[in-house]
Amino acid sequence: MLPGCLLLTGLLRSASTASSAPRMPKNMGSWDKFTSSSCYSHSNNASSKARLTAKEQLDPLALIKDEVSEVTDRLRSMVVAEVPELTSAAGYFFSAGAEGKRTCPTVLLLMASAISMKISDGLENRSRARHMRVAEITEMIHISSLIHDDVLDDADTRRGMDSLNFTVGKKLAVLAGDFLLFRAFSAAVSLDNTEVVSLLATAVNNLVTGELMQMSITPAQRCSMDYYLQKTYYKTAALISNSCKAIAVITGQTAEIQALAYQHNSFTRQSLLV
Amino acid sequence: MLPGCLLLTGLLRSASTASSAPRMPKNMGSWDKFTSSSCYSHSNNASSKARLTAKEQLDPLALIKDEVSEVTDRLRSMVVAEVPELTSAAGYFFSAGAEGKRTCPTVLLLMASAISMKISDGLENRSRARHMRVAEITEMIHISSLIHDDVLDDADTRRGMDSLNFTVGKKLAVLAGDFLLFRAFSAAVSLDNTEVVSLLATAVNNLVTGELMQMSITPAQRCSMDYYLQKTYYKTAALISNSCKAIAVITGQTAEIQALAYQHNSFTRQSLLV
Repeated sequence: MLPGCLLLTGLLRSASTASSAPRMPKNMGSWDKFTSSSCYSHSNNASSKARLTAKEQLDPLALIKDEVSEVTDRLRSMVVAEVPELTSAAGYFFSAGAEGKRTCPTVLLLMASAISMKISDGLENRSRARHMRVAEITEMIHISSLIHDDVLDDADTRRGMDSLNFTVGKKLAVLAGDFLLFRAFSAAVSLDNTEVVSLLATAVNNLVTGELMQMSITPAQRCSMDYYLQKTYYKTAALISNSCKAIAVITGQTAEIQALAYQHNSFTRQSLLV
Repeated sequence: MLPGCLLLTGLLRSASTASSAPRMPKNMGSWDKFTSSSCYSHSNNASSKARLTAKEQLDPLALIKDEVSEVTDRLRSMVVAEVPELTSAAGYFFSAGAEGKRTCPTVLLLMASAISMKISDGLENRSRARHMRVAEITEMIHISSLIHDDVLDDADTRRGMDSLNFTVGKKLAVLAGDFLLFRAFSAAVSLDNTEVVSLLATAVNNLVTGELMQMSITPAQRCSMDYYLQKTYYKTAALISNSCKAIAVITGQTAEIQALAYQHNSFTRQSLLV
């Protein structure tokens, strides 16, 4: 079993022992069986291994470090608009020092490493390129929602710096969020997979619904753990959950593994929040 | 030649005589040849003809009146969200008396009538249903942009009534616009045609770019007719142009007819504005 799989399986096991497990499937053995038999790391080839030190081989994040940087670089080139002001605003959170923890691409590329099959190099590279596209799209949807959230909340700061609305004004911030959503959907369409585009569209709907649930909360709902969990799932987990499933769909995994990929993140995030 | 074709061909001819014709193709004869030989009206069957009076048969709008009403009804049922406040806000401009002129579905369904081939009833019905989906998607993108524009402009009124942001506040209005965009993309994905989804995504990008061009205009640009035409094209014509092309793509038309469908509206709207 490779480090990427170890990390994901470990997270999954931690999640399975948590007390509130409404979405966790009963037959957890299938995941263990799957990861121990067929999981695959993108760096599981001679040249990649030679580049990694012994310590790095035990560090799952080291396996995808270069690819996460590549995703970040590509994102900067993807958000170029016809009007310079829009390029500058849409690229605000992709500039050096403003990228944040890059959780979305990190989790998604680790998931891709964990569930990818051992296939011929050509096919594997093509599949990996599509995994990276999903990581880029997810990050754009995430940043779009952060920008619109900050407009809605009149937030002054984000990621330890001035928020975009504080820097360029609310109007341009709303348009920058719309533009990022357009770029994300355009990139999703280029994947030429209706199910994947549909999963990403559902994630956008969940983000909007979660924000609305937070905005319109009643005193009774404020005391409901179910409401809190649902709202939190929509606002923080649904995007990566749907994207994890998209990774499994692109990899050609079975419906069972697709469901596990979806549930893994949703459950991990919620167990960390409770 | 049927009334739907007559209207579109007439508009096209008017457009071709306008002085500023940067996007109009040189071989206009191909459109005439096409419409006179193969254009088709949805109402060109015995039962529909029986329902139409002689006067109505000369009125192109009468040909698609029932379908435009059907699109309006379907839109009301399509914008139902999980949170009631969001349903109410997103459906604000689809409620009775607030639908406006319904220009998008009207133009698109007339275009569909003009360029559809005579094919067997089953295929024709399926194709027509997809044309109506494009009309619905286009109307949702249009309303989403109106809602966000009103937020950006602090507008109090729209369509002779209170604007959505004035009625429910800016926050909910921004989310309602995002939700409509999500619903539009979800519906577009269900058409299972990558080119059509890509055309609609381009239209959203054009709307955002046009709004930005208006917002960030310099004194020199304010005196430029080219800048004005480009901004106006993005803000008012690009959506229906791309959707008209999507109609032609769905109908299985040639690249030439797809280009004419795209240029027809773009040119007509601009010639009306100049």
